[in-house]
Amino acid sequence: MEKLRREVYEANILLPKLSLVNFTWGNVSGIDREKNLFVIKPSGVEYEKLSPENMVVVNLKGEVVEGDLNPSSDTLTHMVLYREFPSIGAIVHVHSPWATAFAQAGVDIEPLGTTHADAFYGAVPVSDALTQEEIESAYEENTGNVIVRTFRERKIDPDAVPAVLVRQHGPFAWSKTPVKAVEIAKTLEIVAEMNYHSLQLTRADVRLPQFLLDKHYFRKHGKNAYYGQKN
Amino acid sequence: MEKLRREVYEANILLPKLSLVNFTWGNVSGIDREKNLFVIKPSGVEYEKLSPENMVVVNLKGEVVEGDLNPSSDTLTHMVLYREFPSIGAIVHVHSPWATAFAQAGVDIEPLGTTHADAFYGAVPVSDALTQEEIESAYEENTGNVIVRTFRERKIDPDAVPAVLVRQHGPFAWSKTPVKAVEIAKTLEIVAEMNYHSLQLTRADVRLPQFLLDKHYFRKHGKNAYYGQKN
Amino acid sequence: MEKLRREVYEANILLPKLSLVNFTWGNVSGIDREKNLFVIKPSGVEYEKLSPENMVVVNLKGEVVEGDLNPSSDTLTHMVLYREFPSIGAIVHVHSPWATAFAQAGVDIEPLGTTHADAFYGAVPVSDALTQEEIESAYEENTGNVIVRTFRERKIDPDAVPAVLVRQHGPFAWSKTPVKAVEIAKTLEIVAEMNYHSLQLTRADVRLPQFLLDKHYFRKHGKNAYYGQKN
Amino acid sequence: MEKLRREVYEANILLPKLSLVNFTWGNVSGIDREKNLFVIKPSGVEYEKLSPENMVVVNLKGEVVEGDLNPSSDTLTHMVLYREFPSIGAIVHVHSPWATAFAQAGVDIEPLGTTHADAFYGAVPVSDALTQEEIESAYEENTGNVIVRTFRERKIDPDAVPAVLVRQHGPFAWSKTPVKAVEIAKTLEIVAEMNYHSLQLTRADVRLPQFLLDKHYFRKHGKNAYYGQKN
Repeated sequence: MEKLRREVYEANILLPKLSLVNFTWGNVSGIDREKNLFVIKPSGVEYEKLSPENMVVVNLKGEVVEGDLNPSSDTLTHMVLYREFPSIGAIVHVHSPWATAFAQAGVDIEPLGTTHADAFYGAVPVSDALTQEEIESAYEENTGNVIVRTFRERKIDPDAVPAVLVRQHGPFAWSKTPVKAVEIAKTLEIVAEMNYHSLQLTRADVRLPQFLLDKHYFRKHGKNAYYGQKN
Repeated sequence: MEKLRREVYEANILLPKLSLVNFTWGNVSGIDREKNLFVIKPSGVEYEKLSPENMVVVNLKGEVVEGDLNPSSDTLTHMVLYREFPSIGAIVHVHSPWATAFAQAGVDIEPLGTTHADAFYGAVPVSDALTQEEIESAYEENTGNVIVRTFRERKIDPDAVPAVLVRQHGPFAWSKTPVKAVEIAKTLEIVAEMNYHSLQLTRADVRLPQFLLDKHYFRKHGKNAYYGQKN
Repeated sequence: MEKLRREVYEANILLPKLSLVNFTWGNVSGIDREKNLFVIKPSGVEYEKLSPENMVVVNLKGEVVEGDLNPSSDTLTHMVLYREFPSIGAIVHVHSPWATAFAQAGVDIEPLGTTHADAFYGAVPVSDALTQEEIESAYEENTGNVIVRTFRERKIDPDAVPAVLVRQHGPFAWSKTPVKAVEIAKTLEIVAEMNYHSLQLTRADVRLPQFLLDKHYFRKHGKNAYYGQKN
Repeated sequence: MEKLRREVYEANILLPKLSLVNFTWGNVSGIDREKNLFVIKPSGVEYEKLSPENMVVVNLKGEVVEGDLNPSSDTLTHMVLYREFPSIGAIVHVHSPWATAFAQAGVDIEPLGTTHADAFYGAVPVSDALTQEEIESAYEENTGNVIVRTFRERKIDPDAVPAVLVRQHGPFAWSKTPVKAVEIAKTLEIVAEMNYHSLQLTRADVRLPQFLLDKHYFRKHGKNAYYGQKN
């Protein structure tokens, strides 16, 4: 767990460096799939006061198993995503301004260019709205449930589209490791900014054709990828 | 008063650090409710020349009781807010660009997402316009009066919505302490930026439902709050 | 002239610090009204290579009287403004992005808020277009002429509105001293950014009423000003 | 080749300094026209890990002739441009946000101001779309081919308009040297940002008249240029 604590800590302090958070409005977690325990940022603690030691360890029932501080208020959302998306290893939640603007508007971030296709194999969806009952009963857990429901209803593979815009809230992103999940969250923010401006420039349907989405996504992902270095 | 002078000084120099001001266009004050005296930035002095010592102390009639420099030209607006909103302990005024764009357009910042709901329990209102007579007689005092009038007419609780957009001017924000008031002003700016972009992305009515506003506001505020750490 | 060279140098290096220029795309000059000589940045020289010594001294016929380098390619525009606006002491020209967007769109920056009214007593106008002949004959001099013509035709006082948007080009701003002229150029940029966003938020006519323009402009300017400190 | 390796390295590390790239999403190359070899950034390597030594040397068939790392995945696009545009000495590819927004929207960057005319003698075109077959067969090479085809069809001189927006992808820019090519890419980004805002401010046709485009372009380019210093 020492290694994971350090990785989660380092990914959390990357958030302000990449201009993904203001104040304490963001959190990163990472899971140890053998132990079924995840490490997450404590709630409301400033990034400069974080350390590997004050990260909180939580099990998949949402119970704190190590740590003196309260875990992030979004802990149960992370828990649901770890339970329901078994291939993911880390999760980030931020209120980054461009992705959040789409979440607030209820507009999917559709693939308009290769920057998008390099990271997301299709639109990054806005989740369904939570009902009043879902909000009033078990809000954070239901936030996770509605993400999962949205991906299943729309037949989106969370490995191929590793992010969601929670409606009227903001983005969650995930990946194999904490630092990679933060990179996905940053990529989403960059893509959202460019997408916004493209949408203001034209009313034409400029969504990528499937064959260009395929080309760019599989240039970087899967067994035939040829971007970057081999080892 | 030494402690309050230092707090007000530190909150003032936070303004340029958080990109909330250009030049000398902003001011923070804080009040000692037992002495009925408030401490405020001197007028037109650059932030790097401020010190706890050159802050100005003013009573609730608007008279300088300590200090060699003129107080902020907005001093009488602060005075009115302290008199009429008895629960507030500090006030910030800035011309931050996103909030000011809404103030100039005369458009309320309505709650479109949880970032807003975490800080403001409802729309941040644009104040009524001052009449020609109000502007020509006692402008700064009447700016305070029109803020108070707007909150009373629209039945807005200044503790639940701790900011206003003075029409064709810019935002005022308040809180219990000077640093917290600056954090509210920064939050308002962030919320305004995201709100603006959401409004350009959709013409749908995407205002938060009341139950989501309730959930997020009371997750952070009041006796049932559970965000952050206990002590 | 040593003092003026230093002031002009310092104002020029302020341009990149205030994010008003990219590359070498901006210049500041200042005039000695007794000698009828002005000091201006050399053409195309990077800001980090500037020194008080390599500033160029030019007379009001546009002839270099001191200096080994070519003066700014905009020198003759500065010359015309110094000849025709006898009260000004310094001029800045930049391609700052928000003001230039208005210049390119041919849209005046109208007063929508007190930030504008604190610095400009009315709209910052877009100049008339230069004719083909004016461009092909004495372009830089005619750029000055068209600025002057625009102010006279529209009866704008260059002391009350110390800036112009040269159509399809960018802003010029002026003041009594080089540093103050740079501050005007920065204020124009800030005002342009807020004005742009206000215009996207509403189609209502939100131009300031004359009495609010009067109040804020004369709070800072003229013999009844009461903003800032006395000495 | 040592000198060229260093120049290409220095131009690559300029990309993050000028805010033209995120992560590893950009590359610069430079060619030795006598040896018909070009030097290019290795694929997917972070900018802080680059050195003159790990740049990759490639011939005009696209074969690596020196270096242990894979060259940029865009290498064959660079190769085609070097073969077909014989006067160019260096190429930059980035996903800078404003230029990419135009590429995604399929909207040319038309000349609206002198900032544009100082660098580009006409519109910076969006390339034709690649067909499905062109994408699936030899994608990177065909990206070069479609750029060349677009310039020939539209009779655009690549020396006069040293940049293109590859549709749904992003900009390529070129010049005589690697650093100058990066400056063109930065200028394109600045021009795209201002163009975008101008287009939102007006529906009038505000494209530059040809005589103003001529004036500014030839003030800086060609044998009658008079901007800057002589030597």
